[in-house]
Amino acid sequence: MDAEEFRRRGKEMVDLVADYLENIEDRPVYPDVEPGYLRSLIPTEAPQDPENYEDIIKDVERVIMPGITHWHSPNFFAYFPTASSYPAMLADMLCGAIGCIGFSWAASPACTELETVMLDWLGKMLQLPECFLAGTHGQGGGVIQGTASEATLMSLLAARCKAVRRIQATNSDMSEMEILSKLVAYTSDQAHSSVERAALIGGVKMKKVPTDEHYAVRKDMFMKMVEEDKADGLLPFYFCATLGTTPSCAFDKTEELGPLCNEENMWMHIDAAYAGSAFICPEFRPLLNGVEFADSFNFNPHKWLLINFDCSAMCIWVCNYGVILFFLLPGLVTDYRHWQIPLGRRFRSLKMWFVFRMYGLNGLQAYIRKHVVLAKEFESLVRADKRFEICADVVLGLVCFRLKGSNELNQNLLKRITQCREIHLVPCQLSGRFVLRFAICARKIESHHVQKAWQHITQLTFELLQEPEH
Amino acid sequence: MDAEEFRRRGKEMVDLVADYLENIEDRPVYPDVEPGYLRSLIPTEAPQDPENYEDIIKDVERVIMPGITHWHSPNFFAYFPTASSYPAMLADMLCGAIGCIGFSWAASPACTELETVMLDWLGKMLQLPECFLAGTHGQGGGVIQGTASEATLMSLLAARCKAVRRIQATNSDMSEMEILSKLVAYTSDQAHSSVERAALIGGVKMKKVPTDEHYAVRKDMFMKMVEEDKADGLLPFYFCATLGTTPSCAFDKTEELGPLCNEENMWMHIDAAYAGSAFICPEFRPLLNGVEFADSFNFNPHKWLLINFDCSAMCIWVCNYGVILFFLLPGLVTDYRHWQIPLGRRFRSLKMWFVFRMYGLNGLQAYIRKHVVLAKEFESLVRADKRFEICADVVLGLVCFRLKGSNELNQNLLKRITQCREIHLVPCQLSGRFVLRFAICARKIESHHVQKAWQHITQLTFELLQEPEH
Ligand SMILES: Cc1ncc(COP(=O)(O)O)c(C=O)c1O
Ligand SMILES: Cc1ncc(COP(=O)(O)O)c(C=O)c1O
Repeated sequence: MDAEEFRRRGKEMVDLVADYLENIEDRPVYPDVEPGYLRSLIPTEAPQDPENYEDIIKDVERVIMPGITHWHSPNFFAYFPTASSYPAMLADMLCGAIGCIGFSWAASPACTELETVMLDWLGKMLQLPECFLAGTHGQGGGVIQGTASEATLMSLLAARCKAVRRIQATNSDMSEMEILSKLVAYTSDQAHSSVERAALIGGVKMKKVPTDEHYAVRKDMFMKMVEEDKADGLLPFYFCATLGTTPSCAFDKTEELGPLCNEENMWMHIDAAYAGSAFICPEFRPLLNGVEFADSFNFNPHKWLLINFDCSAMCIWVCNYGVILFFLLPGLVTDYRHWQIPLGRRFRSLKMWFVFRMYGLNGLQAYIRKHVVLAKEFESLVRADKRFEICADVVLGLVCFRLKGSNELNQNLLKRITQCREIHLVPCQLSGRFVLRFAICARKIESHHVQKAWQHITQLTFELLQEPEH
Repeated sequence: MDAEEFRRRGKEMVDLVADYLENIEDRPVYPDVEPGYLRSLIPTEAPQDPENYEDIIKDVERVIMPGITHWHSPNFFAYFPTASSYPAMLADMLCGAIGCIGFSWAASPACTELETVMLDWLGKMLQLPECFLAGTHGQGGGVIQGTASEATLMSLLAARCKAVRRIQATNSDMSEMEILSKLVAYTSDQAHSSVERAALIGGVKMKKVPTDEHYAVRKDMFMKMVEEDKADGLLPFYFCATLGTTPSCAFDKTEELGPLCNEENMWMHIDAAYAGSAFICPEFRPLLNGVEFADSFNFNPHKWLLINFDCSAMCIWVCNYGVILFFLLPGLVTDYRHWQIPLGRRFRSLKMWFVFRMYGLNGLQAYIRKHVVLAKEFESLVRADKRFEICADVVLGLVCFRLKGSNELNQNLLKRITQCREIHLVPCQLSGRFVLRFAICARKIESHHVQKAWQHITQLTFELLQEPEH
């Protein structure tokens, strides 16, 4: 395919993309295929000779679309949102063309420099403390990571390295392995599975702190665990707080937990994967209070800030960047480019630049607020129906609800919803109860979609409760 | 930006992309900016209100382009190639629009299923042993990872888990920490820094095996180290072989190393990040012999197989997939989606599908062969000039060469090359000598680019050798 053909096919593809997104509501949001459906639809080997482009495009509708869960449909209320916007897609095209790999400054200076400045822009939108910005002093600063999971792992490894050094400095008779075997990390019993996994990878113990009735970690409970562990000879070194937990969007009490971590020489990392985007609104910024006690903070703009996932724009800010640098290749810091290779993906900050400029801070705030209003609207609908209950505080764009009654009843309701394919939800467990999660996700969602979804849910509920076995 | 505007802007962007790539030779391949150049060119904060799209596009030329190292210029001979092709870019646009997150089958069945089948296609192109394919038995199989570094880390962690279990089964008195403190991993002294880093992250010792005069690890040397370490009470458990090392594209002798690893119960991982793509050609496939002894194998199609990096299509095949699954979340295997979240990036296999079909196996093989021929052409030019020497076997698309003389002389030559910005190379160290690497990189490179590059190098050499201090 030469440039001329690309010009033609590329323009067709732009229309295909716009058509797909404009008409996405006409497709069932959830696919009707069995595992293994795709293998039989395509050859078992790559072709020897080039095929026709037209045939490939036909296969998109024949092979791919039947197996797609349409994440950007306004009938999609599952998981948490994944971002999508036209300016981000345009930036992505440019990024693909430039196709530079930014693992060092010299490998493409613009790629490194725009990333640093964009993370400062974003840090300012979030009103992060000065020490998290690269600015002119260049101590803290942000970096785009692949996913929140990687950010958590990075922070845990940096904390591990710092702890080993600190403890060895005062206990020179302790071997590194002995220290490692006594280190203990903590996180909420509501934390994302990636946090536990980070500890597994890093080879350190991790304990789950029980949460209160709002599914938040509080100081008293946490302090008790830390004291007991210290009495048992363990070495507490790391706490991963969650702001906006995956099951119910609960918020750990970082304002009281932070000072405790600081006193105990524990690294506090904040995982705000979903909720972080909302902190650009002054009215939600108090939820981030306590960040001044944190050593590192991350959230996923690719979830709720209109920056497509395909740039995997997870951001991490570190209060003292040097620690992360140092732990990775002690002694090789001058060979900075080697340190960066696995982080050096493509020119992801372009997408931020396009989105921030095409929306402006006001546009981004309006977008967040609209989603929160729609979640509140859904909450009111649920509260007005006495058969249902709300299962967790509705703070941002997520509503956890259930039918008053058994888990089985709620499982049956969800099964019907999933089978109808008109809307898509996923469940969670809260205090042993099976709960439905209704997350506002799509960029183009409106009040009428929320109303229609609720009507659909109540219709299925009506049918379910009619059945003799209930 | 609504769909109508996206249709217009998207088509403009397609032309911008084609124009950039068509005229890339007119730009100096290496930028002429100082660190920090970008910060002063743009505001210190995001705008409050939306800006004009035109202004953003103007800024691409004003702010970004001056700081770009043009990786796809036919005058770029640095590092290893990073792939770029029009079919991949088209697939990427589609991928951005679908914007699904494939962390579980249900999250978008097509995304998971196409990935499995594409890795089988690719595995067949490489003639991987049956056990590496998912096929119908579903034991082995491939997965797209972000980078080779992550693949190496994954394999090391899986090996660590397997070793701990195996050793505990026969030495029930050894604690996990004691085992960990005795585990030892090995890799070549030519291995990529990401291998050492994987051990650092995984908290195990790693030793560098000295290489022979071809920069390859051989059995005798390796066996000696393993025996000595065992005698010292250590537990050898992992070897990362490199096929196509970063400095000189050398090949470890996996055919003799593999059986040794198998006998010693050591996991053998093969990192063929760059060279792997060449193994689709029958004449280069023998370089992969020994893979039948490996537990895992990976390479980066985004380096040399025309699949743009922006899909970060690193592939890993594991002979027994179950091990990887199991180590990550023992006991939670049913909650498969949690295991996959950090791996579940976007719909990256679409790009493979488009590229394999638009090129066909023949087209891909022709592409690899052309690059190898051009490298040989450059090698001949160097060999014909008695002032120069070739520093490592030229097997694929990389030529390592230097001026006969001091390291300083060669450093000066490279400095001049870099300052002229007509071509771009990076150096390496081989046996303590400063060596220039000439890698065939661009998709559109032709013989005349290689000839011109050589003329340029010899012209600068002439000038350098004229100077009084030499
Ligand atoms: C609180 C939280 N942390 C981490 C993650 C994982 O994010 P990623 O896929 O970027 O690793 C999620 C995903 O929903 C999340 O909700
Ligand atoms: C042999 C080898 N392994 C690993 C890597 C790192 O690749 P990645 O950036 O995908 O982690 C490279 C990069 O050039 C390499 O040459």
